[in-house]
Amino acid sequence: MKAVRLHAYHQQPVVQDVPEPTITGPFDVVVRIGGAGVCRTDLHIIEEQWAEKSGVQLPYTIGHENAGWVHEVGSAVSNVAVGDTVILHPTPTCGLCHACRAGNDMHCENSTFPGINTDGGMAEYLLTSARACIKLNPSTRPEDVAALADAGITAYHAVRKAVPLLYPGTTCVVNGAGGLGHIGIQALAALTATNIIVVDRNEDALKLASSLGAEHTVVADGKHVEAVLDLTGGHGAEVVLDFVAEQGAQQDAFAMTRRNGSHFVIGYGSNIDIPTIDIISTERNVIGNLVGTYNDLAELMVLAQAGKVTLHTKQYPLDAALDALADLDAGRVRGRAILTP
Amino acid sequence: MKAVRLHAYHQQPVVQDVPEPTITGPFDVVVRIGGAGVCRTDLHIIEEQWAEKSGVQLPYTIGHENAGWVHEVGSAVSNVAVGDTVILHPTPTCGLCHACRAGNDMHCENSTFPGINTDGGMAEYLLTSARACIKLNPSTRPEDVAALADAGITAYHAVRKAVPLLYPGTTCVVNGAGGLGHIGIQALAALTATNIIVVDRNEDALKLASSLGAEHTVVADGKHVEAVLDLTGGHGAEVVLDFVAEQGAQQDAFAMTRRNGSHFVIGYGSNIDIPTIDIISTERNVIGNLVGTYNDLAELMVLAQAGKVTLHTKQYPLDAALDALADLDAGRVRGRAILTP
Amino acid sequence: MKAVRLHAYHQQPVVQDVPEPTITGPFDVVVRIGGAGVCRTDLHIIEEQWAEKSGVQLPYTIGHENAGWVHEVGSAVSNVAVGDTVILHPTPTCGLCHACRAGNDMHCENSTFPGINTDGGMAEYLLTSARACIKLNPSTRPEDVAALADAGITAYHAVRKAVPLLYPGTTCVVNGAGGLGHIGIQALAALTATNIIVVDRNEDALKLASSLGAEHTVVADGKHVEAVLDLTGGHGAEVVLDFVAEQGAQQDAFAMTRRNGSHFVIGYGSNIDIPTIDIISTERNVIGNLVGTYNDLAELMVLAQAGKVTLHTKQYPLDAALDALADLDAGRVRGRAILTP
Amino acid sequence: MKAVRLHAYHQQPVVQDVPEPTITGPFDVVVRIGGAGVCRTDLHIIEEQWAEKSGVQLPYTIGHENAGWVHEVGSAVSNVAVGDTVILHPTPTCGLCHACRAGNDMHCENSTFPGINTDGGMAEYLLTSARACIKLNPSTRPEDVAALADAGITAYHAVRKAVPLLYPGTTCVVNGAGGLGHIGIQALAALTATNIIVVDRNEDALKLASSLGAEHTVVADGKHVEAVLDLTGGHGAEVVLDFVAEQGAQQDAFAMTRRNGSHFVIGYGSNIDIPTIDIISTERNVIGNLVGTYNDLAELMVLAQAGKVTLHTKQYPLDAALDALADLDAGRVRGRAILTP
Repeated sequence: MKAVRLHAYHQQPVVQDVPEPTITGPFDVVVRIGGAGVCRTDLHIIEEQWAEKSGVQLPYTIGHENAGWVHEVGSAVSNVAVGDTVILHPTPTCGLCHACRAGNDMHCENSTFPGINTDGGMAEYLLTSARACIKLNPSTRPEDVAALADAGITAYHAVRKAVPLLYPGTTCVVNGAGGLGHIGIQALAALTATNIIVVDRNEDALKLASSLGAEHTVVADGKHVEAVLDLTGGHGAEVVLDFVAEQGAQQDAFAMTRRNGSHFVIGYGSNIDIPTIDIISTERNVIGNLVGTYNDLAELMVLAQAGKVTLHTKQYPLDAALDALADLDAGRVRGRAILTP
Repeated sequence: MKAVRLHAYHQQPVVQDVPEPTITGPFDVVVRIGGAGVCRTDLHIIEEQWAEKSGVQLPYTIGHENAGWVHEVGSAVSNVAVGDTVILHPTPTCGLCHACRAGNDMHCENSTFPGINTDGGMAEYLLTSARACIKLNPSTRPEDVAALADAGITAYHAVRKAVPLLYPGTTCVVNGAGGLGHIGIQALAALTATNIIVVDRNEDALKLASSLGAEHTVVADGKHVEAVLDLTGGHGAEVVLDFVAEQGAQQDAFAMTRRNGSHFVIGYGSNIDIPTIDIISTERNVIGNLVGTYNDLAELMVLAQAGKVTLHTKQYPLDAALDALADLDAGRVRGRAILTP
Repeated sequence: MKAVRLHAYHQQPVVQDVPEPTITGPFDVVVRIGGAGVCRTDLHIIEEQWAEKSGVQLPYTIGHENAGWVHEVGSAVSNVAVGDTVILHPTPTCGLCHACRAGNDMHCENSTFPGINTDGGMAEYLLTSARACIKLNPSTRPEDVAALADAGITAYHAVRKAVPLLYPGTTCVVNGAGGLGHIGIQALAALTATNIIVVDRNEDALKLASSLGAEHTVVADGKHVEAVLDLTGGHGAEVVLDFVAEQGAQQDAFAMTRRNGSHFVIGYGSNIDIPTIDIISTERNVIGNLVGTYNDLAELMVLAQAGKVTLHTKQYPLDAALDALADLDAGRVRGRAILTP
Repeated sequence: MKAVRLHAYHQQPVVQDVPEPTITGPFDVVVRIGGAGVCRTDLHIIEEQWAEKSGVQLPYTIGHENAGWVHEVGSAVSNVAVGDTVILHPTPTCGLCHACRAGNDMHCENSTFPGINTDGGMAEYLLTSARACIKLNPSTRPEDVAALADAGITAYHAVRKAVPLLYPGTTCVVNGAGGLGHIGIQALAALTATNIIVVDRNEDALKLASSLGAEHTVVADGKHVEAVLDLTGGHGAEVVLDFVAEQGAQQDAFAMTRRNGSHFVIGYGSNIDIPTIDIISTERNVIGNLVGTYNDLAELMVLAQAGKVTLHTKQYPLDAALDALADLDAGRVRGRAILTP
């Protein structure tokens, strides 16, 4: 089958032929890929940012945001059958460790992360497990929802954690209205009545944000921290969802956070550097966020199937994977780029 | 009356005569001070760290950790009467803003902070409000409990917030077993069954920690991060209560925090500087902490009156306030220094 | 001034002249009433259901759901001024007890409940306190929002408590779409993405419910429990908000509740009678609900001013108070009856 | 092998020979039983109280509280090996439904409950699943801990849910200090600093309660509700853990509950019957409780291995199972009766 393989860091991946994956364990599932999202993390992988953390051996197939149809199942799989349309939780988990038993899939002590530390879904077929499969309505087109498998779950997980802080009368800043941010805005609008302010460098992204539920939009032009403070009576926002967190945006995001507020770090790339006296004198928090739980993704699919979260995507055939990566890197993608068979 | 007055930053305060405070509003209360705690923040005030944040006009009386007896009350005060023994919440609040109506006293939009931004309690009398007074058993000696009014409430507030994270099987690191830390250890032992590891540079502080409920103690000798990781199977602790947060301790504290864990910043003094990829790839949090609520202090007094939290103090007469400050600065105080009339 | 006075239980109140209330304490506020809601509880008061619980001395003025304009203020009132448009939290509280310090206004140990246990707002003027006043935009018409002061806050408080249980994919049954229920539906739609099923005997009420956000409506015709089970795959709803809780509706509401679900009792009138084996074998809860906090009402006013909660009212002049009570008793009021000056 | 088999309701079970269970699925585990607890629910099963709810076919083997050693494992079992000492979560779960993915094992849609609806552990061997096994220190004696598998987890689960309500200054009533109650008292003492009042008819049970951490004990002699009110300043307790919930105890338990408090139903047998006006006028809750999660049991084993929860047991050989049931029924067992091989 065809797959997008990374052979060396700081070089482009290659679309080439590799053997199809096969079932070996009772809970294995092979999925025929219908849509595979292209993510900024793929660029970071190529740039070697994840090399040490993932410990992956090159070459391998990237692609950690996948949906498709069940192609083959192991002997003990009971929740899906061959032919089912599925979206895949990004980390197949063991189901037996303390984190799994608490529902914290992303903290499983024995999980894999296909596309990060083992072969991923920018390919015709993907090996995953029964525990990663969420069965969808058979009419769902995988390419329409694939981006929810990583961008979506990550944005939703952060919003879900923020909901108790975002009662009526509060403000939430969405810092960055790209692939994740535009889903975050919709999840906020569906789950809260908070006042949403969206900050982005790109005017088109801000227009999209307004149409999705943002009350105010602010161009990230150097005066944006001041603009957010002005919009919040000088106080800042109870929650800042920081989908950027690099190149200074992480410092700005903390500066936009209100006394007793929380800065949710979701994007990444640079260091955050804060005087501890600023943390304690205002009792502000910096909150980490990582993917989400299986149930987070299941809930998000409920919102998607109800039309409350819709994706803005740009589709590329699998053979054009490098074009998709290049467009993303150059800022030419609104919403999310998706590879299709 | 006598009071400890700061006339200029980077100079020692002066014990001198000033007029006694008087009642002007219906909720005013004047308290005769029985015990006033001496805190590292007093040193930081003298060092000008709080000048900009507090905006206080010099000269003024320091001392933000106070207990005593009610001396005079305003016309509408109903919760205490002249002669009552009281401990004082550090920030007299308005009772009407959103934060007050939610019980978040330390985020009142109209509070004062005697000893920080107005005259404090290193004096014979202090002006405060009915909303700051917690009535105590008449047999309580103010000098025995004064340190709970700031060191105590601050440690307790952080522990209280951490309780839901500290179920049986978890580990909590207490970073620093001084004035606040030794109260934090006792509060942890009273409210949780977590495994307590205490880190401090001082052997005597660690001995005290063991006697108060620490399962393990670690000398902060440069190998302490490794030692904590060894004691936690390489994982780190679910919660690190960082009562130091300066001179590198804040970086060590984050490094001791487990995946999905939380670093509670309580002390202050230096910057914390973390790669955002470390925050998101492990979903760790940095949690701000500031004093505590009125009810936090009331709960802590329940623990104190039940003998579950006891203070280790060293008493000085008010006239010897400068000796107390010098001893604290030189690391010669175990537990908390208290000024008495 | 004119006031609606109850002189004897099981007899109709009388509209008559009484002296105007006056300021005596520093936090007193006298409000000129612009709108006073008429509530099923007023009928229950007349029927003597509250006599023992309230301990009120007859005659007295009823009316516990009030909005208007500040007419006179005590010497220490700082949050409102004469002429301000205000809505009134139903229970002026002491601000000093444990419940007040935790923000639980409805559990204040020293509050009054005007219209229940002291003179209420079916009158030209009402004596309340600074702590009960929420300042509104001056253009707000009190008669348009008065019903939020009790019906609204009560429905909102219950919804707010239920929000953490109502993630996407869940179902919430609203049992009763009258004065409180129609606000509850709107609050649910604003704060959650749950699937809303509304049950009521009245077809018009169900039509209104559909227009406000109900996905399904069910006529309470004796087969309604079965209908709700059918709509939920035989499981029942995660949450049932029971705005009726009398004449068997409370038993039906529990029967509609899913395993691990919660039956929120908000209305009242009959006994609930459940085998404890049914409670423990399914881990279901029965949750009490009483009015709400000051901040609950403040949040609800944010929703109202954003147009996310609108009231369906029928206005009567104060002189026609008995007509309003009779219409309510006869089921002739859609939404809420409001008395105006 | 020998097993305790129920052949007909309202008749005593029979100890007889049956075939040993065998492995069929990849996650199956056969455990050699070292200790099987005898529970009031076993009496209720014989009395036919569970017949309709469980739907079990007679004859079958009772016993739902088990610990022992792994005897045989299925092909995919990775968390335990033959020879391991284990305690068993009472409900082997599917691991794939929404409840399992949230960690709510007791609400699994596809679980079995050995001893309730399939063959249980009053036998030499038991068939369970990898998901039910918690591996213990090899020196642990199964008969010493078996009672934690159902009595323990059930008491602990209720306490764990109550912890956020039981801050210092609150009171918790433990209604019934038998098999579950005496574990509940220890869990309360380990996890909270609440004031514990224990109510029981039996003086010996109250003596044991005092030694385990109860501040006050009250004989259930008809004046016990009044006695609890007296001990709580007339208010009642923030939480009542009702381990009895039959023969009127459930009504008393609600009457002992404070305004804004919660009555946790854990025992069962009679109906609870409350005027809804009492529920809403005080905002009190009735909380269902059912067994507990896998992680609840894992946490409880941490407390047990630290010596913070110890069991009071009376051991009987498996052949004497009917004596154990008779002693329990007659109130002759302090703590818990345990069958051993």
